[in-house]
Amino acid sequence: MTYCVALRLNKGLVFMSDTRTNAGVDNISTFRKMFTWQQPGERVITLMTAGNLATTQSVVSMLDERTKVPAERKPSLLEVPTMFQAARLVGETLRETIQMNSSTGLSADSVFGATIIMGGQIKGMPPRLFMIYPEGNFVEASEDTPHFQIGETKYGRPILVRAYDRDMSFEQAAKLLMVSFDSTMKANLSVGAPLDLQVYRTDDFAICHEQRIDQSDPYFQTIAAGWGEALKRAFQSLPDPSF
Amino acid sequence: MTYCVALRLNKGLVFMSDTRTNAGVDNISTFRKMFTWQQPGERVITLMTAGNLATTQSVVSMLDERTKVPAERKPSLLEVPTMFQAARLVGETLRETIQMNSSTGLSADSVFGATIIMGGQIKGMPPRLFMIYPEGNFVEASEDTPHFQIGETKYGRPILVRAYDRDMSFEQAAKLLMVSFDSTMKANLSVGAPLDLQVYRTDDFAICHEQRIDQSDPYFQTIAAGWGEALKRAFQSLPDPSF
Repeated sequence: MTYCVALRLNKGLVFMSDTRTNAGVDNISTFRKMFTWQQPGERVITLMTAGNLATTQSVVSMLDERTKVPAERKPSLLEVPTMFQAARLVGETLRETIQMNSSTGLSADSVFGATIIMGGQIKGMPPRLFMIYPEGNFVEASEDTPHFQIGETKYGRPILVRAYDRDMSFEQAAKLLMVSFDSTMKANLSVGAPLDLQVYRTDDFAICHEQRIDQSDPYFQTIAAGWGEALKRAFQSLPDPSF
Repeated sequence: MTYCVALRLNKGLVFMSDTRTNAGVDNISTFRKMFTWQQPGERVITLMTAGNLATTQSVVSMLDERTKVPAERKPSLLEVPTMFQAARLVGETLRETIQMNSSTGLSADSVFGATIIMGGQIKGMPPRLFMIYPEGNFVEASEDTPHFQIGETKYGRPILVRAYDRDMSFEQAAKLLMVSFDSTMKANLSVGAPLDLQVYRTDDFAICHEQRIDQSDPYFQTIAAGWGEALKRAFQSLPDPSF
């Protein structure tokens, strides 16, 4: 499993992803699931992936043009004129990769599918956030639904929905994501630290803050321990029924 | 979908179930999922069901001996000597019902499976709580895992795990279950009110409190509105990171 969340705020975009991959509970590894393409001053595009690791790694390699020697690589993601076309490019690459694997006639225990969250900004246009499906099509975050989750989305959703506020600061957003990830990691062994955090401030055209958060990170430990207590206090603050 | 939870407390057992059944989002109905057999002063046995409705209704009818005319019905659940044998009886009835439907050679869009939570007490023995699987086997709640959930278990689990305390009062337990159900109903349309609540106090051998909670119930509305605010305050009480 996996857990990735992206928030669209008034100030910009915030991304967080876990790094655990697993094929059964007895076969776990650590892989980065957050990838960024940037042309400082002009564009930043960040992807987070969930699903079959061979598929997602292949998609990222194709987008990176790793079939070419390093000197000749000019990733199209750095050249498409709009975020909409970037989403289309990623969607097509994803669909083709899945089709290529599926059409060999070989089958795997798990399917080849994957889902991708893509967010970023290209100069002259506002930041945009997309969720891209295995079929290659995609939806965009809106005022009504300003965040996307992929992977193990359920445990961490109630707090996300309730504490999210589009006016929140990047620090508060990072805290919210840590609470949401902590609830998920406590409930599903296949979501695990370290976590990758990335903050993009609107019109910066460069990453504002990037951080890898280990299980032993002092702030993360404060949140993990403090949230349980805070939840209990919140629970106790509600009136008891009488019967 | 469905959501049912049973808690084992020092004071007794508390059960809560929703009543929504669905075959697609455009075909929903209300059915009770909580069933009780009691011999006042001697035993109380409560079942909560999740899964295929035809299967669970059939299991309950078989346990009720509804194949016989009312005068001749002597449900074995009222005669088995121990809760362990009651769990075995329910497990066998469940397995046979599923087998009977599956072996007709007909297949359905959804499977015939079902899962059952069973709790209660028989005089001379402590209260016990079981989770019974479609295969007919079962596990019992323990000091380490003193509650069972079936159906849509994920959204409501974080608060359940964190605020549960075996010493809590029945009123606090009812509040905890309402918070857990509220989070679930806000996230999954296939879990819906009214909710059934039942409280069993150890060595009462009769139901202590039973209640149907509608969406418009004033206390439930207090919880539904208050929990969002309480969660936000809990979230704000944690320190922000700095970067």
